[in-house]
Amino acid sequence: MSATSPAGPSSSTVAEIKEKARRLRILSMMSTTAAGSGHPTSCMSAADLVAGLFFYAMKFDPKNPNSPDGDRFVLSKGHAAPVLYAALAEAGVFPESRLLTLRQASSELEGHPTPLIPGVDAATGSLGQGVSVGAGLAIGARLDGSPTRVYVLTGDGELAEGQIWEAAAFAGHYKLDNLTVVADINALGQSEPTMYEHQMDIYREKFESEGFATEVIDGHDVPAILAALDRAKATKGKPQAIVAHTIKGYGFSEVAGKLGWHGKPFSKDQLAAAIKELGGAWDIPADPGKSYARKSLPRRVDFPALAAPDYDPAKPLATREAYGNALKRIGAVNPRLIALSGDVDNSTFSEIFDKAYPDRFFQAYIAEQNMVSVGVGLAARKFTAFVDTFACFLSRAVDEARMAAISRSNLSLCGSHCGVSIGEDGPSQMGLEDIAIFRAVNGSVVLYPSDAVSAERLTEYMARTNGITYLRTSRPKAAILYSKDEKFPVPGFKVLRQSGQDRVTVIGAGITLHEALKAADDLKAKGTAVRVIDLYCVKPIDGKALAEQIKASSGKLVVVEDHWAEGGVGEAVVSALAQAGAPLTKFRHLAVTRMPHSGKEKELLEIFGISADHIGKAVASLA
Amino acid sequence: MSATSPAGPSSSTVAEIKEKARRLRILSMMSTTAAGSGHPTSCMSAADLVAGLFFYAMKFDPKNPNSPDGDRFVLSKGHAAPVLYAALAEAGVFPESRLLTLRQASSELEGHPTPLIPGVDAATGSLGQGVSVGAGLAIGARLDGSPTRVYVLTGDGELAEGQIWEAAAFAGHYKLDNLTVVADINALGQSEPTMYEHQMDIYREKFESEGFATEVIDGHDVPAILAALDRAKATKGKPQAIVAHTIKGYGFSEVAGKLGWHGKPFSKDQLAAAIKELGGAWDIPADPGKSYARKSLPRRVDFPALAAPDYDPAKPLATREAYGNALKRIGAVNPRLIALSGDVDNSTFSEIFDKAYPDRFFQAYIAEQNMVSVGVGLAARKFTAFVDTFACFLSRAVDEARMAAISRSNLSLCGSHCGVSIGEDGPSQMGLEDIAIFRAVNGSVVLYPSDAVSAERLTEYMARTNGITYLRTSRPKAAILYSKDEKFPVPGFKVLRQSGQDRVTVIGAGITLHEALKAADDLKAKGTAVRVIDLYCVKPIDGKALAEQIKASSGKLVVVEDHWAEGGVGEAVVSALAQAGAPLTKFRHLAVTRMPHSGKEKELLEIFGISADHIGKAVASLA
Repeated sequence: MSATSPAGPSSSTVAEIKEKARRLRILSMMSTTAAGSGHPTSCMSAADLVAGLFFYAMKFDPKNPNSPDGDRFVLSKGHAAPVLYAALAEAGVFPESRLLTLRQASSELEGHPTPLIPGVDAATGSLGQGVSVGAGLAIGARLDGSPTRVYVLTGDGELAEGQIWEAAAFAGHYKLDNLTVVADINALGQSEPTMYEHQMDIYREKFESEGFATEVIDGHDVPAILAALDRAKATKGKPQAIVAHTIKGYGFSEVAGKLGWHGKPFSKDQLAAAIKELGGAWDIPADPGKSYARKSLPRRVDFPALAAPDYDPAKPLATREAYGNALKRIGAVNPRLIALSGDVDNSTFSEIFDKAYPDRFFQAYIAEQNMVSVGVGLAARKFTAFVDTFACFLSRAVDEARMAAISRSNLSLCGSHCGVSIGEDGPSQMGLEDIAIFRAVNGSVVLYPSDAVSAERLTEYMARTNGITYLRTSRPKAAILYSKDEKFPVPGFKVLRQSGQDRVTVIGAGITLHEALKAADDLKAKGTAVRVIDLYCVKPIDGKALAEQIKASSGKLVVVEDHWAEGGVGEAVVSALAQAGAPLTKFRHLAVTRMPHSGKEKELLEIFGISADHIGKAVASLA
Repeated sequence: MSATSPAGPSSSTVAEIKEKARRLRILSMMSTTAAGSGHPTSCMSAADLVAGLFFYAMKFDPKNPNSPDGDRFVLSKGHAAPVLYAALAEAGVFPESRLLTLRQASSELEGHPTPLIPGVDAATGSLGQGVSVGAGLAIGARLDGSPTRVYVLTGDGELAEGQIWEAAAFAGHYKLDNLTVVADINALGQSEPTMYEHQMDIYREKFESEGFATEVIDGHDVPAILAALDRAKATKGKPQAIVAHTIKGYGFSEVAGKLGWHGKPFSKDQLAAAIKELGGAWDIPADPGKSYARKSLPRRVDFPALAAPDYDPAKPLATREAYGNALKRIGAVNPRLIALSGDVDNSTFSEIFDKAYPDRFFQAYIAEQNMVSVGVGLAARKFTAFVDTFACFLSRAVDEARMAAISRSNLSLCGSHCGVSIGEDGPSQMGLEDIAIFRAVNGSVVLYPSDAVSAERLTEYMARTNGITYLRTSRPKAAILYSKDEKFPVPGFKVLRQSGQDRVTVIGAGITLHEALKAADDLKAKGTAVRVIDLYCVKPIDGKALAEQIKASSGKLVVVEDHWAEGGVGEAVVSALAQAGAPLTKFRHLAVTRMPHSGKEKELLEIFGISADHIGKAVASLA
């Protein structure tokens, strides 16, 4: 379906695309009216652009709509899903009848796109993320030496999202000339006109300032659209933006350009009037109910076993540094490993990987939202993407992680500098909510190593694992706890201190595990036996196995964590035990409960109640 | 300290500012060397700009540094805290000796600024938030008819954050001519040069495209700085940007303009060499240890009691609509109530407030990060700020909420459209992690009403409450459960069904409470008595009071929630009970555990396991 000619498209091509656009409008209206909800007017502003993309510009194989060498389309304005679905149907990916199942519980055609739909690479619907995903797909195509071009259709309401401009800067910086952004400027938001309405020059300036080859067109002028797409394709050395002046609801004069029609399907009478205005429709048979959901989604590539990490047991090392070492070791045997950092790779230690494999490291600068969504784009091309920054700054990209889960993406995130143990930098740099955040990502795995050996092995686990995986690393150097051959299954934990007379079980991870070990050794010297558990895997937890341990200390438990009390290790444990039917007889939860402060690491552990001393007192109060 | 003249600053003024800048550099170096950590080079690039701001441009009263009519300074590049602290000391807010307590646990001068420091309005240190805070302060000053001007100093690394451009667009749109952004373009990030290095024209274009009066200057040329500040002050009708070409570490040739010096204090020898190069220092006496932490922070204004909300018990109403009604009712008696929405006010229902008080509603468009931080700026001026969007899209602003807590801000957030009960729009629009997110904000209150009466009363509670408060509202209409005179204390819950023979307690909130009531009524008809609790306040929880209830059903508990299993109502309850020493004998947690799908509300409650039918079965399995 690719037909570029230097003389421009022929009149028959133009007529064909116009007819496609007409059909897309009608199908978008029919499907939303059938569903009783949805966003027909947002589809109608985009229909000419989508027709030009799918039926003129894009190399698109309906038999292999997610082909890595085909062109890719990202519908950043995800609420215009029906026009995408209509294009897929028109292209022959599934029958038109399927469109009439829109938004039904039994249909893969959900209210907003997900990758379960053929041709879709990432879920959209939280606005402003599509350009980042497209940049990830584009940079991935470049790495693969693929001729793939990536087209991202945005709305204008979503151009208010800062992430769009993070992504534009990223695309401009990396000169992603295989990326074309088509912006559907219909001037109407959900509740009122957009900030810039139809001031097209503002959008032009914004894209130009980010290094895009930019042109403004009439988004309902099909020859202009096709010519702009031709010029975009011919552009070398920079990404392109086609900023299209459109009318929301274009094609149905009762609603076109009017406020108050966002997210509202038309009544049957309105639909009939609209179809009449558009020159009439055709019959669509009843849908036979066959699902076209993708049977297989991208999976990470496998790679050979790594030699065991070999650390000198006498030399403490920060888990964050072990993460960097692991990336390098994995990178040596997994050529699809890619790392991105938010300009802190010399703190998170992905710089170790960067130095070894500079072609596979991308500086994402201080723009965490874009970084995470670029990772989703890379993952869709089966790259093993790792992204890292300080744990606290990943709180900038929670929506992007959420959408990554809806995208069924395989993405690994590492947050360093967790908790008060970072010391002098103070609370703005302390990740104290990251476990709560990443536990609440559907299907996620949350890992929290306490030493370099486990940090390396857990990083390797992440690289082999599909879905969203999160690694929490710590700033301070930590003693080596494990021999190099130790295995760290997921779910799992390690019992580091135990006896037949344990009075209390203490669960820690990261810095607090070391404090717990110290407390246990102190208590042992005083005659109180304490069981100590390293909960290196905070999600999932094998509640039954953990319950057995707690039983051994008569249901007496102390959990200590360098995290807020809410949503962290303590709640994960208590919840898992409750569901396993293991009643706690006595429980103390040591966590950060007051706003922390700058200070020295050890001092802060003391002040905020999670030091060995506090653990000792908590145990004594239960024993 | 304001000295604007059309002829430009006199040579003696220039000399004075140069001497101030010299002193700021020396003090920044001395304090970070004393602390053994910190970012001297980031201070040195900014020293001339900060000197020009504090000692020439700004109306700043060191005896009342947070005066609402004084000019305000926001250090967006929070890691340059020492230069701000030095300026405050030079201005006479506290003695220079205090600077040498930098980053100590006993000092208010933390690694990054917080409002505990006189003159600071909001915590910074997570980059890219200062322009938004400044826009909030500026729009607040305008509302107050105050002559306050707001100056925001940004770095260039942080100009990669999309939020900066959300804020710039907001400031341009609202023509905030009392806002000046001074950008310190030192071209070096933490790990490598910034994306644009010293390509000053790119920054110029970016600010100009957002509607800023923009000029590029040499940030070490004091006369140029002062002249630019004069011109900014004289600009009407648009915000201003002064984009300053600077050198990181300027003033100490050993490090100036060199990579590898981010966040590193100088050794004592380096400090001596630097001071020599800068013309020598002076003696600073030992600090006597007196704290200068602010004794009182901004509090919300009080307002008269509201008449009870009067809903027809026979007419179901969505809690989101009751929130909008409450805003309007509060707005009538509290002139400092301000609401912002992310272009969804016709879904969250703050449009009801907008229609009644359009001067106190600000459209924040689809830019949630900026919206939340603007709220922080407004709160610093003692406005009662409410911000709202869909609950899922607040996941875009988690870092901003986190920083609001560190800012000790008083900010109310409302997230609508929680859970699978929104229906057809699908998972991208379902807030399923918002309770986990907002519970993990330090000091927060998390409220989850189930009917219109409680939604109104809880909104009123929020408006009267300092700190971060979060209201979770639901899309569907819900039956009225409470009479108009019901009170909803925080913490608190309501027991809606109880008897002396309760076999199981069921805790729900929002849509699941209604399902629980239905299940209880069905079970009662079959002879099983069930206690039903409305946990309208998810944080804090009075664990002891709740334990009494659970005891009445022999420790058998079902929690049902329209939220992921992690970090939500269930974990909040189980954790509170464990800490209250109330063992659960049997527990079932009904929550959303699989990725949801589009579909009809009732259908989805069924499919994802949180319907009355599922509750009934869970109770039966425990009873």
